[in-house]
Amino acid sequence: MSHSFLHPDRLLPPEGEALRVARELLAGVEAAPIVSPHGHTDPEWFATDAPFADPAALFLTPDHYVLRMLGSLGLSYDDLGVPRRDGGKVAAPRDAWRLFACHYDRFLGTPSRLWLDHAMHWGFGIDTPLSAETADHHYDRIAERLGDADLRPRAVLDRAGVSTIATTEFALDPLNHHQHLAGEGLIGRIRTTYRPDDVTDPDRPDWRVNMDRLAELTGQDVADWSGLIEAHRRRRAEFRRLGAVATDHGVPSARTEDLSVEARQALLTRLMSGTPDPDDAELFRAQMLTEMAGLSAEDGMTMQIHAGVARNTDRALFTARGPDKGADIPLTVDPVAGLAPLLNRYGHGDATIIFFCLDEAAFPRALAPMAGYWPALRLGPPWWFHDSPRGIARYLDAVVENAGIWNLAGFNDDTRALLSIPARHDVWRRCVSAFVGEMVARRQIGVQDGHQIAAWLCHDAAVDAYGLPA
Amino acid sequence: MSHSFLHPDRLLPPEGEALRVARELLAGVEAAPIVSPHGHTDPEWFATDAPFADPAALFLTPDHYVLRMLGSLGLSYDDLGVPRRDGGKVAAPRDAWRLFACHYDRFLGTPSRLWLDHAMHWGFGIDTPLSAETADHHYDRIAERLGDADLRPRAVLDRAGVSTIATTEFALDPLNHHQHLAGEGLIGRIRTTYRPDDVTDPDRPDWRVNMDRLAELTGQDVADWSGLIEAHRRRRAEFRRLGAVATDHGVPSARTEDLSVEARQALLTRLMSGTPDPDDAELFRAQMLTEMAGLSAEDGMTMQIHAGVARNTDRALFTARGPDKGADIPLTVDPVAGLAPLLNRYGHGDATIIFFCLDEAAFPRALAPMAGYWPALRLGPPWWFHDSPRGIARYLDAVVENAGIWNLAGFNDDTRALLSIPARHDVWRRCVSAFVGEMVARRQIGVQDGHQIAAWLCHDAAVDAYGLPA
Amino acid sequence: MSHSFLHPDRLLPPEGEALRVARELLAGVEAAPIVSPHGHTDPEWFATDAPFADPAALFLTPDHYVLRMLGSLGLSYDDLGVPRRDGGKVAAPRDAWRLFACHYDRFLGTPSRLWLDHAMHWGFGIDTPLSAETADHHYDRIAERLGDADLRPRAVLDRAGVSTIATTEFALDPLNHHQHLAGEGLIGRIRTTYRPDDVTDPDRPDWRVNMDRLAELTGQDVADWSGLIEAHRRRRAEFRRLGAVATDHGVPSARTEDLSVEARQALLTRLMSGTPDPDDAELFRAQMLTEMAGLSAEDGMTMQIHAGVARNTDRALFTARGPDKGADIPLTVDPVAGLAPLLNRYGHGDATIIFFCLDEAAFPRALAPMAGYWPALRLGPPWWFHDSPRGIARYLDAVVENAGIWNLAGFNDDTRALLSIPARHDVWRRCVSAFVGEMVARRQIGVQDGHQIAAWLCHDAAVDAYGLPA
Repeated sequence: MSHSFLHPDRLLPPEGEALRVARELLAGVEAAPIVSPHGHTDPEWFATDAPFADPAALFLTPDHYVLRMLGSLGLSYDDLGVPRRDGGKVAAPRDAWRLFACHYDRFLGTPSRLWLDHAMHWGFGIDTPLSAETADHHYDRIAERLGDADLRPRAVLDRAGVSTIATTEFALDPLNHHQHLAGEGLIGRIRTTYRPDDVTDPDRPDWRVNMDRLAELTGQDVADWSGLIEAHRRRRAEFRRLGAVATDHGVPSARTEDLSVEARQALLTRLMSGTPDPDDAELFRAQMLTEMAGLSAEDGMTMQIHAGVARNTDRALFTARGPDKGADIPLTVDPVAGLAPLLNRYGHGDATIIFFCLDEAAFPRALAPMAGYWPALRLGPPWWFHDSPRGIARYLDAVVENAGIWNLAGFNDDTRALLSIPARHDVWRRCVSAFVGEMVARRQIGVQDGHQIAAWLCHDAAVDAYGLPA
Repeated sequence: MSHSFLHPDRLLPPEGEALRVARELLAGVEAAPIVSPHGHTDPEWFATDAPFADPAALFLTPDHYVLRMLGSLGLSYDDLGVPRRDGGKVAAPRDAWRLFACHYDRFLGTPSRLWLDHAMHWGFGIDTPLSAETADHHYDRIAERLGDADLRPRAVLDRAGVSTIATTEFALDPLNHHQHLAGEGLIGRIRTTYRPDDVTDPDRPDWRVNMDRLAELTGQDVADWSGLIEAHRRRRAEFRRLGAVATDHGVPSARTEDLSVEARQALLTRLMSGTPDPDDAELFRAQMLTEMAGLSAEDGMTMQIHAGVARNTDRALFTARGPDKGADIPLTVDPVAGLAPLLNRYGHGDATIIFFCLDEAAFPRALAPMAGYWPALRLGPPWWFHDSPRGIARYLDAVVENAGIWNLAGFNDDTRALLSIPARHDVWRRCVSAFVGEMVARRQIGVQDGHQIAAWLCHDAAVDAYGLPA
Repeated sequence: MSHSFLHPDRLLPPEGEALRVARELLAGVEAAPIVSPHGHTDPEWFATDAPFADPAALFLTPDHYVLRMLGSLGLSYDDLGVPRRDGGKVAAPRDAWRLFACHYDRFLGTPSRLWLDHAMHWGFGIDTPLSAETADHHYDRIAERLGDADLRPRAVLDRAGVSTIATTEFALDPLNHHQHLAGEGLIGRIRTTYRPDDVTDPDRPDWRVNMDRLAELTGQDVADWSGLIEAHRRRRAEFRRLGAVATDHGVPSARTEDLSVEARQALLTRLMSGTPDPDDAELFRAQMLTEMAGLSAEDGMTMQIHAGVARNTDRALFTARGPDKGADIPLTVDPVAGLAPLLNRYGHGDATIIFFCLDEAAFPRALAPMAGYWPALRLGPPWWFHDSPRGIARYLDAVVENAGIWNLAGFNDDTRALLSIPARHDVWRRCVSAFVGEMVARRQIGVQDGHQIAAWLCHDAAVDAYGLPA
């Protein structure tokens, strides 16, 4: 293994007391079970436990972090083997892999590089970086191992020490794979999450059709406000039956509302009749967030809000290949005005609400103080673009003093890439150990305090925030 | 004393040249007199010099930082002994203290922990952390010492080496305690500050009544613009007689205006007649900031602007227990457009204007460049949520290069908690020493330069910014 | 030389492995040619190669960084010898210099101090800081050397190892100095840059006149949209003939538009006829950015966008002494919505678009992710107020993980001060070496990776981003 490839002290402080303490803290948390309460792995993997297809399908084509960076260098998604909606021809897996390999040095300094190096080593024993020279060797090595028993999806969970993992499904999802998993007694280890954006976002082209489908599925009159809420209540119960401990809500802004009963009904009526006012879609999303907090207070599901993202900013990409291909970009959020209606109603209640955003400036200004006040509110971990060594360091720096460590929700890997799960938790644990080790080295806290904090952030916080069995 | 409890090198760099220089710098400033030109201690303490009531009344119930964090963990303000407006029963001091003690570890990593450890040690010789086990011991230790002569308010100022301390009073305040202090020759050591928000903010429910009271107090027709300004001129003179060297203005935004004489009068007339336009309250606050800068240019009082806070964001808390209980949250500010009218009129003049906000993103973008240009403008220290080791480090990192060190106003403790004053200045001095020590260790400046900078930031800057006697 | 004056390890990590690696990286890049693809030096200097007038004219009066800081301390621009538009008397050079020297310690911690120390040493062998005591000595030393052959403008480029330097001229500039340089075979070493703000910003008082002049110069009907674009096409070709490889656009916001042909013509007609709608100036700037990207895709000139600055915020200064005297202040930018029209049209094309702003919060939130997606987009270096050790460190921290190192445009000195060029590149190279050295010391990358990154950031990136000959 080359010196710079997965050095045992990678991401820890350079030397001295901070390094010594960080090593000790890491040793205390590195064997903890992985709790993965929020992510986007495919439940079919676990239901069928089938092997992955080929190295490119494992590491390249489904990873929007990798695709976007290669695309930014001028490579075409066709040449990278990314499927087209029109069925047009794209590169074969090995050709795409070679192109990827030739540009692997372009990932220096990015979290993708850390995850990929870790995953290739962890999964396949590879101990040299991918490059033009090693492209075929690594491809063959991976391909020959893909069918092995210890690389099947369930075995990966075992080897990685994943105690529980949640997938994410829309409100109308039939949950077939989870039904199958229930039959095998695997619910609990594997869980779904209730993400009702398909019926809470009137800007989706299929929203009106989805509302009818929701009515059908639940036997409720969803054109009536109380019927609509009852429909959600029933779907949430069904999701809970298949392991869900949380809901998730992706919204462009942090806006919430707390409308009167009459105003809610009038809003719904305008939307259902196809004659909305210009602000109605945003108003509906805002009111539905408050309703979901109310249902969480009632049924105990942890509520996750992911706010502030412009989706599909490259229209041509969306048209050619669909969503989640790398062109979503974060926005500013205003949590103070935005969350006030929801928090004034449910902020003292029993609901647990985890707020995620990528507007870092909002953390020290507003979100840390808010989490340090409202009992219901916890801060989600650095997410997506900020799930990286520097992103983690900036996040911890910005929030611990005013949110307090016990109002943080721990870590989420939020990934679509199964093999990146141990890699991402490894980066988090190292960065937490470095951060806490530096606090000890600056003599702000003692080593035993450090162990308590590291254990919370690397394991216990997620168990607590999501109400998982200990 | 346990290793992690008030380590002599706490908050300094871990080791090496940076630590050596930081220790030397700290040694040079740690005995400097404390200048406390902005804060919220109660003047009655100094006027009567009576002992504090009990440990909870000293450390817990008046400290909104502590209450908010405990509340965020799900504890009730009733159980923490926070008085209710309806006179309802709340926990007794010792019971509240025990609850606080059981959760003391939840403050790890927060500035409250640093201040509380320091204050308990400094005031009462306590040298182990508060905890469930030590709750009663510490309570008794504090309670038995509270009546001692060296813990009376004035003695605390002596022991802490406070050369001057300013309290803050509204424009209509009768200043009785300061009158009493004047009689004892203590004005100068203790000062008031002119905070006319009670008559400059038309959004306050009592504004109209307050305006009538201002007219009465000063014999001016405050419905006439020049009468209104003359009324302020007279109140400012009265405050100066009782030691005031500064004014203070709490405003939701950084907006200022410079209206024509006619527009000012028309605005005032609309407000006084109870028929304001929707924007008039904001417009009045904006114009009054410019007027106050004009009066500062005239009478030499330093003008402090604290901008960008949403007050009382938890309506239920405000109803039950009033303001300043932990639910105020910072907002973004736009100092470029906001301050332009004021600065174009008074930015080159003799007024000293100190601007405070909690929108950190505005510091490197706009505030540091603005302070590095306008003669009248200085930057207030990291305030409130950012008066913390990391907040201080981020602030210094963001401002020194473009504001220059000599356009910073030094430190304000801004506290309501008397015993936190030495603790807060201690944290500032340590963080300044660490910051400057690291500049020296990176060989950007020499050690003698470092001493000059540390002395300015830890003492001289505040004397200069507030025009205090040297 | 005093210990703190230009220490050979200045700005590098304090000690240990990070220092060792940073030294090694710096040794690898410090002799690289200086590429200066964006700046504001005066082409007359190079055309005439005449000596500079006096020390104040070299170091003080043209340097808005220095003037603004001295002004912020209460010194008057008259006393600093800054020319007035009304021809009024200002201080003589030596008197101004003495005043500057007396306040030189006020620059501690600022980048100006680093640049000035470096330039006085580099150009004149001075090895003690400027001060009241050394004022006359340094003045005389500089004055006596100014006429020497090795301090003529062209010799400075040689001594500094500048391989290419670009000046910036408006669209209507006759480019006389560059014509002269062409005659001497110096185009290539020295280049112009096409900055058409004089004809793309309808808010300029001279815009309408400038449009007529553009028509004259190019023989096009600029009241017709296609004529207007053809006029730009021709001016760009003329600039390219004189070395230009880039265009530059200074805009108050990041807004772009992609209007229909009809809407473009209607907009132009309203503006040319003097009857614009209120938003038309902004709309025209927005559409012109997209047009310029289109022309860049066509002719290969790299497009630079400098967005988000409020110009001339001190009206009195502007009236008395004109623009660029220190009162321009950065603004927030919204690159997500702002750049969407331009990027959706040209973001995948062959144009290279370099985006600069001073709203740091936009880098980790939006700009780094955008540069890590769009092939056409690169991030400009930390600019102006952020071209400083801490500004550089924050920038690299904020962008490398998500933009990737290969989507950065390297360094621009952007200066009006010839002797600050080697100083500014020296600071950049040191800060890059420190940043990369710390990555190696944290074992995220290997030393050889570090060399590759440092070489890119300190030299190759600029060559690549501006399409310069290698």
